[in-house]
Amino acid sequence: MSDERARLGDMDPQDFRREAHRVVDWIADYMSSVDLYPVLSRVQPGQIKAALPAEAPERGEPFERMFSDFERILMPGITHWNHPGFFAYFSITGSAPGVLADMLSSALNVQAMLWRTSPSATELEEVAVAWLRRLMGLPDSFEGVIYDTASVSTLHALAAAREAAVPDVRALGLAQRPDVPRLRVYCSEHAHSSIDKAVILLGMGHEALRRIDCDDEFRMIPDALAAAIAQDTSNGWLPVAVVATVGTTSTTSVDPVEDIQEICEEHGLWLHVDAAYAGVAAMIPGYEWILEGAGKADSLVVNPHKWLFTPFDLSVLYCRRMDLIRQAFALVPDYLETVEAAPVRNLMDTGVQLGRRFRSLKLWMVLRHFGANGIRKRLVEHMRLAQLFARWVDASADFIRVAPVPFSVVCFRADADDALNERLLDAVNAGGEVFLSHTRLQDRFTLRLAIGNLRTTEAHVARAWAILQETSLQLRAPVSQ
Amino acid sequence: MSDERARLGDMDPQDFRREAHRVVDWIADYMSSVDLYPVLSRVQPGQIKAALPAEAPERGEPFERMFSDFERILMPGITHWNHPGFFAYFSITGSAPGVLADMLSSALNVQAMLWRTSPSATELEEVAVAWLRRLMGLPDSFEGVIYDTASVSTLHALAAAREAAVPDVRALGLAQRPDVPRLRVYCSEHAHSSIDKAVILLGMGHEALRRIDCDDEFRMIPDALAAAIAQDTSNGWLPVAVVATVGTTSTTSVDPVEDIQEICEEHGLWLHVDAAYAGVAAMIPGYEWILEGAGKADSLVVNPHKWLFTPFDLSVLYCRRMDLIRQAFALVPDYLETVEAAPVRNLMDTGVQLGRRFRSLKLWMVLRHFGANGIRKRLVEHMRLAQLFARWVDASADFIRVAPVPFSVVCFRADADDALNERLLDAVNAGGEVFLSHTRLQDRFTLRLAIGNLRTTEAHVARAWAILQETSLQLRAPVSQ
Repeated sequence: MSDERARLGDMDPQDFRREAHRVVDWIADYMSSVDLYPVLSRVQPGQIKAALPAEAPERGEPFERMFSDFERILMPGITHWNHPGFFAYFSITGSAPGVLADMLSSALNVQAMLWRTSPSATELEEVAVAWLRRLMGLPDSFEGVIYDTASVSTLHALAAAREAAVPDVRALGLAQRPDVPRLRVYCSEHAHSSIDKAVILLGMGHEALRRIDCDDEFRMIPDALAAAIAQDTSNGWLPVAVVATVGTTSTTSVDPVEDIQEICEEHGLWLHVDAAYAGVAAMIPGYEWILEGAGKADSLVVNPHKWLFTPFDLSVLYCRRMDLIRQAFALVPDYLETVEAAPVRNLMDTGVQLGRRFRSLKLWMVLRHFGANGIRKRLVEHMRLAQLFARWVDASADFIRVAPVPFSVVCFRADADDALNERLLDAVNAGGEVFLSHTRLQDRFTLRLAIGNLRTTEAHVARAWAILQETSLQLRAPVSQ
Repeated sequence: MSDERARLGDMDPQDFRREAHRVVDWIADYMSSVDLYPVLSRVQPGQIKAALPAEAPERGEPFERMFSDFERILMPGITHWNHPGFFAYFSITGSAPGVLADMLSSALNVQAMLWRTSPSATELEEVAVAWLRRLMGLPDSFEGVIYDTASVSTLHALAAAREAAVPDVRALGLAQRPDVPRLRVYCSEHAHSSIDKAVILLGMGHEALRRIDCDDEFRMIPDALAAAIAQDTSNGWLPVAVVATVGTTSTTSVDPVEDIQEICEEHGLWLHVDAAYAGVAAMIPGYEWILEGAGKADSLVVNPHKWLFTPFDLSVLYCRRMDLIRQAFALVPDYLETVEAAPVRNLMDTGVQLGRRFRSLKLWMVLRHFGANGIRKRLVEHMRLAQLFARWVDASADFIRVAPVPFSVVCFRADADDALNERLLDAVNAGGEVFLSHTRLQDRFTLRLAIGNLRTTEAHVARAWAILQETSLQLRAPVSQ
């Protein structure tokens, strides 16, 4: 019997223990030496796939062999998001306490669809999102729920907005309804592509999304929003929701949420605040203004996996009207009906995904490990580094800063044409020490330096600046014939 | 400088090393002794929340303290999905090789939105889903993509079906379009609630979902489907898609996919196969029939986190027309435009979620650790145990089996009224050794015993049966006055 169990069960626990200790040592070494890898992977398209067999093995293999392939084949194809020279997109951190928590989540393998399948996961989620809500200064009237990504959080927010605006939309949908005009959702021209994907998915159509002009600091112009709403209304559209962004993806600009909120209130529109990246900064004294007006919003998304040191994926949606999300999605088949000793929250009722991973554990451990004070200090340090870099750019004759720096991202370009800036970015990234990404601002190719990894120090930012300057000089130098 | 780094950086790597070794020992102990815990948590609603402070700590805390709270406060609130006595819902396994892979994923913290941000994650996903596809005998014309849950996989499948059926739906949506009739999606009365949620989200309305009658073995009746399509068409509805289920949630019944496929082909309807639980069984000789006809489907979902020993969450959507999913959702903002040396796959183009966790690593390590042969043997063993339990039920005068047992789930009831069966389930689950769930079949409260955890042996199934018999006897015994 025990032979058969061993043969047909899971990996032997003693083998797991040995291999897991090996993996832990590898991870600890990796955390201490991630800066020795090229931050941006240098493999060619197709190289990883070509190195792997086309069929699963017929017989099981020892872990050593898989781990050896992981190191030999897969590691060269890793772009190191935990590298101190990762300055692309939004720079993030899979912090050590978060990794420890994730190890426990994986081992417990809790599936948090119902309270009874996961009392701790369900209630710790409530506690952890309440902690974060208070740190950010949001009112307790916001109920929070954890999803995987901001795309899914925003999707649920706009589904709730649709539920609020269109009678019986859950039952009847949108087609063949003379009583339902075409719907409109508003955001700035700098808002995130997840909003486009949400309106498409929700059956409103991409044309439902009207992008509002920004001022010269990339912030939505409230008067333009009001005018668009008036125009649409008189043309028979039904305005449904506005998405204001606190920390846009290109420049981290902050829309004037308070003004936008007043317009929403006047017209009865759902206000969703996309604070996925920058929302956490509201916990810093002096930065409360970024969420002014957001306390009266209907929903707000913030991603601890962005600038709160939590391993990917963990997004929090706060909603003052979670009843509408439940109204839109709660649906209990016979096989999931449960009766508990007291009313409970079943996470499956707050969204499309039935199953939920035990994600709150990592948010809770990250918040406790660093403490509110420790998190504030780290965010402040990232902003200090960004300001420092911005000053270097400003002081340089060869570079131009292209946008204000409210948080930890700097947008800039070499004072040259787009082609040179593109070559500059490619050359800098090819070096392996740093990885920056780009955007387009005022229709010009623009470089972005984003700070958000806990390993990034002033020395790394200075090195990035040195590499940019040197490479720019090399590219501008007259080519010797 | 190094002082400042230490103060403002991540947890010290040596501290991480020490704590992670401790966590690994805890996990290895847990894996060896999970059967000592009560499988279903015994905490009361609100108990976990009440034991935790309402505010995040201002100062950071040592890991020992968090870990001690984890053991003392959270562990009693864990329902043990990895317990050999977990027979509820679909029984799953977070296997050791999967946990090892997840540890590496968490540490690397790769975000796989673009090929360049994750060459190994992107290409390993292609390889791992191809391995699984071939094991299941599906044609190579199915492109696979990994999502978090079957709910999200099915949502994308039905979004693609909408894209195929409704001209310009991406741009124009569904409202105020005289050219777009009300849409219809078909599934059996035993299909999963994720289909309901998908049609609601997609703006089709819940009424768009028409549930087709089943035969007495809980399988969709193809003639009833054909009749419904004919009736709807003549009444002005636009049939769009059919969802056939291979392994329904209540009874694991298998819809006649081949017959349904022929109907779909005749009417030009999208066929989505929900094989989330049972699809993996197709890799066993003698079980190829369960996916007969599925090779001609448009899409199919299978969840390695269900019956393929992969830690939650990992769902695979196979689609023969992934171009339609890309057509529906691909959207590249300036800040995500990249040019590579050769054409690449960017995972963000195949769905709503921009960010993706490095999930393929755990599927790859699970497949390699057990090997195709090892997986087949384990699935066969689970089915053997289910058949054994079914025979015990059949031989008993006190219990009635309510449905066929094609895989590893047995539906049965005590030969008594619903009230006694409900009390029986509660009493059995309160004992702590086993956890079963229920459903309703033929409008009667029905118990379900689901096998799917690698730790479950014949002894555990026999113990479940003994507990059920004893408890049933106790409940039926005349109460002494």
